[in-house]
Amino acid sequence: MRLYGAIEAGGTKFVCAVGDEKGNVRKRIQIPTTVPEETIPEVIRFFSEYELVAIGIGSFGPVNIDPASPAYGNITTTPKPGWKDFPFLQTIKKECKVPVGFHTDVNAAALGEARFGAAAGMDSCLYITVGTGIGAGAVVGGRLLEGLSHPEMGHIMVRKHPEDSYKGKCPFHGDCLEGLASGPAIEERWGKPAGQLADRHEVWELEAYYLAQAIAQYILILSPKKIILGGGVGKQESIFQMIRNQVKEVLKGYVSLPELETEISDYIVKPGLGDDAGIIGSLLLADLAYQKEMKLGMT
Amino acid sequence: MRLYGAIEAGGTKFVCAVGDEKGNVRKRIQIPTTVPEETIPEVIRFFSEYELVAIGIGSFGPVNIDPASPAYGNITTTPKPGWKDFPFLQTIKKECKVPVGFHTDVNAAALGEARFGAAAGMDSCLYITVGTGIGAGAVVGGRLLEGLSHPEMGHIMVRKHPEDSYKGKCPFHGDCLEGLASGPAIEERWGKPAGQLADRHEVWELEAYYLAQAIAQYILILSPKKIILGGGVGKQESIFQMIRNQVKEVLKGYVSLPELETEISDYIVKPGLGDDAGIIGSLLLADLAYQKEMKLGMT
Ligand SMILES: Nc1ncnc2c1ncn2[C@@H]1O[C@H](COP(=O)(O)OP(=O)(O)O)[C@@H](O)[C@H]1O
Ligand SMILES: Nc1ncnc2c1ncn2[C@@H]1O[C@H](COP(=O)(O)OP(=O)(O)O)[C@@H](O)[C@H]1O
Ligand SMILES: [Zn+2]
Ligand SMILES: [Zn+2]
Repeated sequence: MRLYGAIEAGGTKFVCAVGDEKGNVRKRIQIPTTVPEETIPEVIRFFSEYELVAIGIGSFGPVNIDPASPAYGNITTTPKPGWKDFPFLQTIKKECKVPVGFHTDVNAAALGEARFGAAAGMDSCLYITVGTGIGAGAVVGGRLLEGLSHPEMGHIMVRKHPEDSYKGKCPFHGDCLEGLASGPAIEERWGKPAGQLADRHEVWELEAYYLAQAIAQYILILSPKKIILGGGVGKQESIFQMIRNQVKEVLKGYVSLPELETEISDYIVKPGLGDDAGIIGSLLLADLAYQKEMKLGMT
Repeated sequence: MRLYGAIEAGGTKFVCAVGDEKGNVRKRIQIPTTVPEETIPEVIRFFSEYELVAIGIGSFGPVNIDPASPAYGNITTTPKPGWKDFPFLQTIKKECKVPVGFHTDVNAAALGEARFGAAAGMDSCLYITVGTGIGAGAVVGGRLLEGLSHPEMGHIMVRKHPEDSYKGKCPFHGDCLEGLASGPAIEERWGKPAGQLADRHEVWELEAYYLAQAIAQYILILSPKKIILGGGVGKQESIFQMIRNQVKEVLKGYVSLPELETEISDYIVKPGLGDDAGIIGSLLLADLAYQKEMKLGMT
């Protein structure tokens, strides 16, 4: 059996795993995200105990995903100290000497969910994470969504709720989606960490109001076959039904499909892989990198 | 040389053409869109004079583009009398006895522009038409954007300009993008047809305000490699520079790429094929249908 390495690189922690292309994780560790000089050697040390044939990285962003660019595989403009312009892919490739697949954490998660999770067997899905930040990735026509670069769906504009006076927390846009609906925005608006507000109905009604607006825009623009909502805020189970109702409210029946009407409970769902979508997707990125290398070797 | 037929089916007129897979149009006619019993026989009569190997249809929508559905190739919920549930693809196929490709008019136009127009050689572009309605199609990873169905990008939500008291014209959403920024919305707001308002700077500033908001959302969600703006309202040349400036204003430097900054004049552009994007794209849909049939025949 081929053994792959996977890195789900987040702003607070790295999850590293060893597993196979079927999404089986054999071994995993967590490493706190400090600075590259500390975090990366620990990653390498973990992988060095295995005979890996490829590694996949699902990284926090923004990242450069253009294989034709000299900066391919770099983290780009992050405010996180030490990580700006860090050549992530190149560093791992040089140290581990195997093919390395590289994409955003959320695109990796979308890939994992499309292969083995809530969208298993579908060639299209959208994966949204609502946590410290808001981000989304997608599979379209069986492939990861990318173009000029990777999407930045967390920063779309939404309409402020008329009774919401909170100014928003995004350093770029103030009251974009992330600015109004991320975990830290909930905490700042209501004065308590999001995880401690479970009994405050109005908190989740407002949260659903913003997320539903965003999801309606994603539907109108991308038309995904399944929408998967994960991340810390997604742990708030009560929010799903509110979001589904509000999405219908926003779309007003314009897109007339059962998935958006009678079957919406099966359309906007929790991750099938739980918290493992990102790391399993990163194993799949490793597999893609391996398959690509094999093909190149044969031509 | 193989000869293809193409139909660009719009709400006011059908453009039918005969041409080749290189986008050369040999002959074309226009037919007013009345009811299917009148319009379709004229289409058939035109095509019957040629030995066609396939036909491509780029249709006004919404349409069913799911090959697995019994309603594949139908126009679905249009308010246009006579066209609701019209089996467009099946009717043409039965009469003309050739493979028929079928998609939305705007996805066809995006395909045309990606092959021979402003995005020639790119595997990704977004084509937006602003006319009687607002719609958009896209090529992503070299293929037409589709999922649950085709996108309905014209109906996304935008933030009202604080000084705009116009209530909007969309029968579903009121003040969605199409409701606020289509040609008829401009006419109703300012009291004159859009084509006669060229000298009214404030008209185009407001129009650019809404279109730029929408384009910024498309960029954040889809990340197209080129954005092409066509349709009647796109004839207003002065609007392009205003849109480019406002897109930068909305994104606030968050997506740090030259295409969105110093090179934006080359990123948001007019159609390279002028008014022919849709009909040339429909020739390409014919070619895709022909190639697919050939492949099937060989297996
Ligand atoms: N049960 C919960 N309900 C609502 N919000 C929660 C819950 N648990 C954690 N959160 C919030 O989720 C955010 C962390 O998101 P998470 O996805 O776990 O991490 P990260 O985005 O840093 O990877 C925090 O703002 C936290 O308040
Ligand atoms: N030069 C122009 N400047 C601005 N608007 C225009 C211009 N010419 C036509 N229009 C507007 O464009 C709309 C028609 O759009 P068009 O794309 O030509 O047709 P359709 O959307 O029906 O296919 C009308 O509302 C018209 O007022
Ligand atoms: Zn933002
Ligand atoms: Zn609308």
